Amino acid sequence: MSKQKSGKESHAKPGQKPWSGRFEEGTERRFEQFSASIAFDSRLYAEDIECSLAHAEALARAGVISGAERKKIAAGLAQIRDEIRGGKFEWQVSLEDVHMNIEARLVELVGETGKKLHTGRSRNDQVATDLRLYSRARSDALRSAIHGLQSGLVDVAEREAGTVMPAFTHLQAAQPVSFGHHMLAWFEMLQRDDLRLLDLRKRINVLPLGSAAGAGTSYPLDRQHVAELLGFESVSGNSLDAVSDRDFAIESCFACAMIMMHLSRMCEEIVLWCSPQFGFVGLPDRFCTGSSMMPQKKNPDAAELIRGKSGRVYGDLMSLLTVMKAQPLAYNRDNQEDKEALFDAFDTALDCVHIMHGVTASLTVNRRRLQDVLAHGFTTATDLADYLVAQGVPFRDAHRIVGEAVRLAVKKGGGLDGLSRREMEALHPALSGDEAAAVLSPEHSLQTKSTWGGTAPEQVRKQIGLAREHLAQAGGERERD
Amino acid sequence: MSKQKSGKESHAKPGQKPWSGRFEEGTERRFEQFSASIAFDSRLYAEDIECSLAHAEALARAGVISGAERKKIAAGLAQIRDEIRGGKFEWQVSLEDVHMNIEARLVELVGETGKKLHTGRSRNDQVATDLRLYSRARSDALRSAIHGLQSGLVDVAEREAGTVMPAFTHLQAAQPVSFGHHMLAWFEMLQRDDLRLLDLRKRINVLPLGSAAGAGTSYPLDRQHVAELLGFESVSGNSLDAVSDRDFAIESCFACAMIMMHLSRMCEEIVLWCSPQFGFVGLPDRFCTGSSMMPQKKNPDAAELIRGKSGRVYGDLMSLLTVMKAQPLAYNRDNQEDKEALFDAFDTALDCVHIMHGVTASLTVNRRRLQDVLAHGFTTATDLADYLVAQGVPFRDAHRIVGEAVRLAVKKGGGLDGLSRREMEALHPALSGDEAAAVLSPEHSLQTKSTWGGTAPEQVRKQIGLAREHLAQAGGERERD
Amino acid sequence: MSKQKSGKESHAKPGQKPWSGRFEEGTERRFEQFSASIAFDSRLYAEDIECSLAHAEALARAGVISGAERKKIAAGLAQIRDEIRGGKFEWQVSLEDVHMNIEARLVELVGETGKKLHTGRSRNDQVATDLRLYSRARSDALRSAIHGLQSGLVDVAEREAGTVMPAFTHLQAAQPVSFGHHMLAWFEMLQRDDLRLLDLRKRINVLPLGSAAGAGTSYPLDRQHVAELLGFESVSGNSLDAVSDRDFAIESCFACAMIMMHLSRMCEEIVLWCSPQFGFVGLPDRFCTGSSMMPQKKNPDAAELIRGKSGRVYGDLMSLLTVMKAQPLAYNRDNQEDKEALFDAFDTALDCVHIMHGVTASLTVNRRRLQDVLAHGFTTATDLADYLVAQGVPFRDAHRIVGEAVRLAVKKGGGLDGLSRREMEALHPALSGDEAAAVLSPEHSLQTKSTWGGTAPEQVRKQIGLAREHLAQAGGERERD
Amino acid sequence: MSKQKSGKESHAKPGQKPWSGRFEEGTERRFEQFSASIAFDSRLYAEDIECSLAHAEALARAGVISGAERKKIAAGLAQIRDEIRGGKFEWQVSLEDVHMNIEARLVELVGETGKKLHTGRSRNDQVATDLRLYSRARSDALRSAIHGLQSGLVDVAEREAGTVMPAFTHLQAAQPVSFGHHMLAWFEMLQRDDLRLLDLRKRINVLPLGSAAGAGTSYPLDRQHVAELLGFESVSGNSLDAVSDRDFAIESCFACAMIMMHLSRMCEEIVLWCSPQFGFVGLPDRFCTGSSMMPQKKNPDAAELIRGKSGRVYGDLMSLLTVMKAQPLAYNRDNQEDKEALFDAFDTALDCVHIMHGVTASLTVNRRRLQDVLAHGFTTATDLADYLVAQGVPFRDAHRIVGEAVRLAVKKGGGLDGLSRREMEALHPALSGDEAAAVLSPEHSLQTKSTWGGTAPEQVRKQIGLAREHLAQAGGERERD
Repeated sequence: MSKQKSGKESHAKPGQKPWSGRFEEGTERRFEQFSASIAFDSRLYAEDIECSLAHAEALARAGVISGAERKKIAAGLAQIRDEIRGGKFEWQVSLEDVHMNIEARLVELVGETGKKLHTGRSRNDQVATDLRLYSRARSDALRSAIHGLQSGLVDVAEREAGTVMPAFTHLQAAQPVSFGHHMLAWFEMLQRDDLRLLDLRKRINVLPLGSAAGAGTSYPLDRQHVAELLGFESVSGNSLDAVSDRDFAIESCFACAMIMMHLSRMCEEIVLWCSPQFGFVGLPDRFCTGSSMMPQKKNPDAAELIRGKSGRVYGDLMSLLTVMKAQPLAYNRDNQEDKEALFDAFDTALDCVHIMHGVTASLTVNRRRLQDVLAHGFTTATDLADYLVAQGVPFRDAHRIVGEAVRLAVKKGGGLDGLSRREMEALHPALSGDEAAAVLSPEHSLQTKSTWGGTAPEQVRKQIGLAREHLAQAGGERERD
Repeated sequence: MSKQKSGKESHAKPGQKPWSGRFEEGTERRFEQFSASIAFDSRLYAEDIECSLAHAEALARAGVISGAERKKIAAGLAQIRDEIRGGKFEWQVSLEDVHMNIEARLVELVGETGKKLHTGRSRNDQVATDLRLYSRARSDALRSAIHGLQSGLVDVAEREAGTVMPAFTHLQAAQPVSFGHHMLAWFEMLQRDDLRLLDLRKRINVLPLGSAAGAGTSYPLDRQHVAELLGFESVSGNSLDAVSDRDFAIESCFACAMIMMHLSRMCEEIVLWCSPQFGFVGLPDRFCTGSSMMPQKKNPDAAELIRGKSGRVYGDLMSLLTVMKAQPLAYNRDNQEDKEALFDAFDTALDCVHIMHGVTASLTVNRRRLQDVLAHGFTTATDLADYLVAQGVPFRDAHRIVGEAVRLAVKKGGGLDGLSRREMEALHPALSGDEAAAVLSPEHSLQTKSTWGGTAPEQVRKQIGLAREHLAQAGGERERD
Repeated sequence: MSKQKSGKESHAKPGQKPWSGRFEEGTERRFEQFSASIAFDSRLYAEDIECSLAHAEALARAGVISGAERKKIAAGLAQIRDEIRGGKFEWQVSLEDVHMNIEARLVELVGETGKKLHTGRSRNDQVATDLRLYSRARSDALRSAIHGLQSGLVDVAEREAGTVMPAFTHLQAAQPVSFGHHMLAWFEMLQRDDLRLLDLRKRINVLPLGSAAGAGTSYPLDRQHVAELLGFESVSGNSLDAVSDRDFAIESCFACAMIMMHLSRMCEEIVLWCSPQFGFVGLPDRFCTGSSMMPQKKNPDAAELIRGKSGRVYGDLMSLLTVMKAQPLAYNRDNQEDKEALFDAFDTALDCVHIMHGVTASLTVNRRRLQDVLAHGFTTATDLADYLVAQGVPFRDAHRIVGEAVRLAVKKGGGLDGLSRREMEALHPALSGDEAAAVLSPEHSLQTKSTWGGTAPEQVRKQIGLAREHLAQAGGERERD
Repeated sequence: MSKQKSGKESHAKPGQKPWSGRFEEGTERRFEQFSASIAFDSRLYAEDIECSLAHAEALARAGVISGAERKKIAAGLAQIRDEIRGGKFEWQVSLEDVHMNIEARLVELVGETGKKLHTGRSRNDQVATDLRLYSRARSDALRSAIHGLQSGLVDVAEREAGTVMPAFTHLQAAQPVSFGHHMLAWFEMLQRDDLRLLDLRKRINVLPLGSAAGAGTSYPLDRQHVAELLGFESVSGNSLDAVSDRDFAIESCFACAMIMMHLSRMCEEIVLWCSPQFGFVGLPDRFCTGSSMMPQKKNPDAAELIRGKSGRVYGDLMSLLTVMKAQPLAYNRDNQEDKEALFDAFDTALDCVHIMHGVTASLTVNRRRLQDVLAHGFTTATDLADYLVAQGVPFRDAHRIVGEAVRLAVKKGGGLDGLSRREMEALHPALSGDEAAAVLSPEHSLQTKSTWGGTAPEQVRKQIGLAREHLAQAGGERERD
């Protein structure tokens, strides 16, 4: 951020803190360092100033300060913002946090008038407001990044709508699916993440300012107007709750944890697919790294790192749930611990979504390898059972008959097409014909799965169309915000 | 539930399982026990039968089975439901789960036709559908229970709107608030829980059936119609995702964890308030228990237990997040672990909300004790500072002056009203008058906090009105569902 | 367990509970059900009776009861144990827990004398003692099971000491290793688990009885003697701590979580190795299951389930950490929540270790497939670099040169042995000789890694010898316990 | 730390990374930033250099490098250490991590010889070694800090051994205890933490170096000698396990989480005791902070912050458990995520233990308030029941009789000493005498709890003696380490 005064010069003496009227001795040196939040909450400076500007306007409208005083305060705050941006602001640990650092500087700059800014508010409602402004911006940015990643996935899906690959269950080849269909499965996960963030936005976007320390304020502040100034959709209805509520922070961490869970699943597949044993896809060198010792290594580090970072965000979520467990009303200092976990969850999710965008967009699909794998599996055994059903065999019996065919083929060391007509006939007369042989083709299998949400290329393309529509709309919405 | 056949009689031989066509040997005895889910998923029997009835209708509409067959299946399933309800169904561990137990019994009851029911579906989409039906019902029940608890809180809030108590920050007396206001803070927490459950409902209420094992189905099943039959709002758009998605289960656990976090906060306060040192409220004997050794004990066990149970639901959430971490598409057996945590989270949250309703409705408020406490604190020090502001003192200076007054009073061993006029005057001339003394009254302080969300009784009553409106509407909505 | 009286008959009236002297009204029906722990703590009956027998002896030695009374109590408790074992005991929810159920029955059986048993103790120290006895037994059983699994792994390691396979880093083939070496890596993980359980045992094996409700007791009970009777190594030194300490339960959950983490890693590899793309090992049918829909499926469910169950135990750990967070001294009812998580962690870990034993012992290794894989990789590239080092090339340069050789070979679509002598020579003169070609053999590579802990078969066999010695010793230790 | 070159100048071109021989294109800019660990692992520089010095010696002893080369390398490394300490080292993001930054600088400084240092090792075993050296140092420092805090608690315990206070269960007054006894309960919690760290040390203190990338090394490195140089107690026995094992990191986080759990419990009590309703202790101004708005506030922030920070360390633990879940052997890049959580857990625990030392040492005990509270409770009701037992009443009956006395006293609004002789006699004849009245004194109650671990002052002083002995020994041990 910028310069931070070393502890020595800024030793707190009684009377030096903005709240120290009733105190006899200064803060213990080590504890001052321990308890100061300035090292991380200075990051909220822009939100803090935005919040103060709105509060100053509210004070002016309520007649608590004059219009001239409001202007003076606004000018001072603008200068402070410039100083911070320019790296010229001197953060002081002895002033504890971003709020008191900015207020103290304001008093330096504009004198007595600066001392009036904190009228009718407390750091309790101030920090809650700052943190909501921050969360709103970060979750909006996260939605944007998700849309970007989704958009990239839809492009790959379109390109590979007709590429056949084996779907796996239990990491055993299950049935043929379209590679594009697989990409759309990832799209769907992100779709829920996007909607979760949108739902969360309503709960973030509530104004706490005006709740003061927890009882509300006696100054006739027009909270509705402050909400409008700051773009909040609603105004908190209970002052005690407003200063202690951190649901929005926990829910933000949860939304990020779900995103990371989804990315970890995609990454697991990318790591698998990049292993030579699978060999389904290639990752360009620019997203891989090598080994300090083994000259041949080209590792899909991007995917591994993202997968690993899911742990980090799970931890952030668990931190905040623990912090809030059994906290009595209203504000307790435990809540200072809300920030770093929240920052980390948003930062990590944002970074990972961006990197994932690059990674997925640059995957190359090894279509020949996919065909080879399909040729040597039993992925159309279900199609054969379904064929028997069409011949009047109840499904449960058809399943058993084809199961026995598979057992026989495995023993012989080949696929179902390696069984002789006689062997097939012995299992069931209908299995020996050409029609039965035809249903063993992966391409044929793919075409038939054409109900809503199925893997038939035409169906995949229909879903791509819907996805594109949705993204266009989401982009539009964002612009209107 | 009902009788469960002991392992001995039901030893699996090759060929005995519904899927064992390709298998050479039976399942290892200990592993069969280990992997069977019937001990807990039998709980889903009603949902499983509902799901099968809809699937049978879809098969009939698609011409895969005849109308007569559909009826036969429906009659068989109805009988099975009765058998289970009546405790007469024999669950078999060797049949693994609720799905195969019911299917096997169906075949016993209706013969060949029963073997057709599993056409075009897999346990993968079946269990996902069952679990969504279950989650929908439980989350609706949870919302209902929350409305009940909220309603009880609003009643207390109304009764105690004018009761003055100290609000605490850092567990130090902060400012006077209305006891009713405090109850409404609890109401607000639950309000967010309610909305979270409502948002979640959209993500639960999506039909996976028709996704089969993960690739979709080749039978022309009308998924939209199935969705209508089962009351789902939408149909999953990607079959791979649909069978492996457990977001709704994790989000359910999260919603329950947040509820438990809120309850743990309320309980912490109840435990505090019941301690003789606080003595703010009394809990009737029927929600307390005694000590096996100490004859005088009457402990607020209900509140402690609920507080403790927050850990349990946090654990459920962490379990499911871990289960899904890095799972490749599509279904993996790891997902069997989704059920017990989900069941436990819903059960615990529902029980706790119900008990909390009883507890809060029966709290008795010790008004005299609250007044005593207010008389001996400094909860109106801020009002005095605000009074100085009104006399033209900048707030930061007013804060310092009153802080010094507090320091003086503490030294003298009394309250601010124990300072002499001369002492007050020495600090600031405006402090020595009658007006200044008047602002020290807690009741006066309360009246002045009348902006939106503040603690003034009139404002509290306004919020009570809104709360009642909301609850009436929520009740109405539930009825329409 | 056995019969549980339905709620109706057992409605608590004031005066009916063993602690209700000071209570005016009975326990609320729903809360009674909610707060009773008998549904799960009845599992501790044997420990509870063992604990009571020891306490009775202490009371007799202290002269608080007579020798005859002690015998009467002992006989009553023995009968109760038989009743419970025989399924004839009537557990009553209204009596809350295992302790009060047993005490009440004792009074029924032996009359007045039974009322003396609770002298000088409280449920607080009683349940802590029971739970420690339980944890000690379960953790010992877990160590035994681990030794069994380890022993099986060593057998496989011996059989496959000379089998070459690719080691992976980043799921990319890295270097040739012995399959037996890989098994020993799993052995090592379990080795740490075993030691952790042994360390934990000291912290479990401390006697709390005699701490009463938290202040200690005024009866001259010989706690050292009680400890000897119950096999405890030491006696708790602080009564307040003793009744509220649940460290041993949390640490037990942690030990189980680490075991599950290790098993999840082994399972991940088994799932990978069983996938046709890897095909390294086969799992017998008896540890696999099929698909209800896809006839060809044979899934490694055992491994997947165990992997999934890691989430469950992580959740148990998180539950208990949350329960204990910020609990004031001494006992609080929150602690009732300690049991189910602890039971579940031990049960799950024990089951999984047993199943894993069966699974690993029955793995068949596909040696031909392993050789094929090695033939087509670059796993000996490092050996080539080391060869250059031996020719005087600094390692970092050797790494670069071989890296370029790999790049060339990849472009040509083959291995390093596919490069011509001229191509090799162009990269470095020393690469073109026969000696260089010889180091490309996986078997050669294996032989050279013969320092302590390396993968050379001789070294592997040395470690197997040490492992066997350790297991023999551990078995002996267990027998002496 | 020191200067970090901005991304622009250090753009990776193919060939620039130390591992890029086989790579065609450079690393993507954003991904390079994302994947670099230098921002946090530069903290390991001292351990990394120590590790390299030992490795160089091993290479020299094995004849891989000459004695002169070893000296050159050692001199280069020493210079680098000085540069880093002096803030003059230029960390480059493009060089990824602490290892490659130091190696690259070494080559700059000592030329070709520097390129030989990485012979026979990989970053996989190097980072594992660094991290173990780090963990060993931090856990030793943590033990030291714990001894300091324990020592402070013993001092308070000695000062207040005879101070009577009410012990609480369920936050209801239970029995009289010595304040010193309460301090020793805290001591005991920390005692287990200390032993856990000591047990953990064995599992940290194992040398992985020599395992190279996972297969071991073909250079005849004397690992036992390296272990001695670095102070490791033992040498890892399996190279695959050695490079992927992070148990020691997770167990470190667990040990820290347990410490934080204990501190959170102490802090909860300090916060309670500082609230005016309890008023049991005072915290000096230097560990408190005020409110920006409320002039009277003096909040026990130190205790609240520490309590809140428990969440942070729980999160660290959960992070690492998640990272390791289902990781196949051997090293995966996910493991890069092990560092920040580990660093944070140690940092937080260390800071909190230090602050807690200051806080507890400066607590002032309000003895008069404690006496007042005891005078108005029923904390000696159990003593009265025990008195009845001594008169021949079975304990369960004595409990009921005294319970009824309490009920009566509560109705009358006083204590047990407020009941008349007649009222007492009506309950039980033995209750009406002087002897019965005498047992109601808290001081008397205290004296009688004199069995091992009880609260009688003589017993407390005995435990203090043992604690002091233990601490003296621990101090001695540390010095010998």
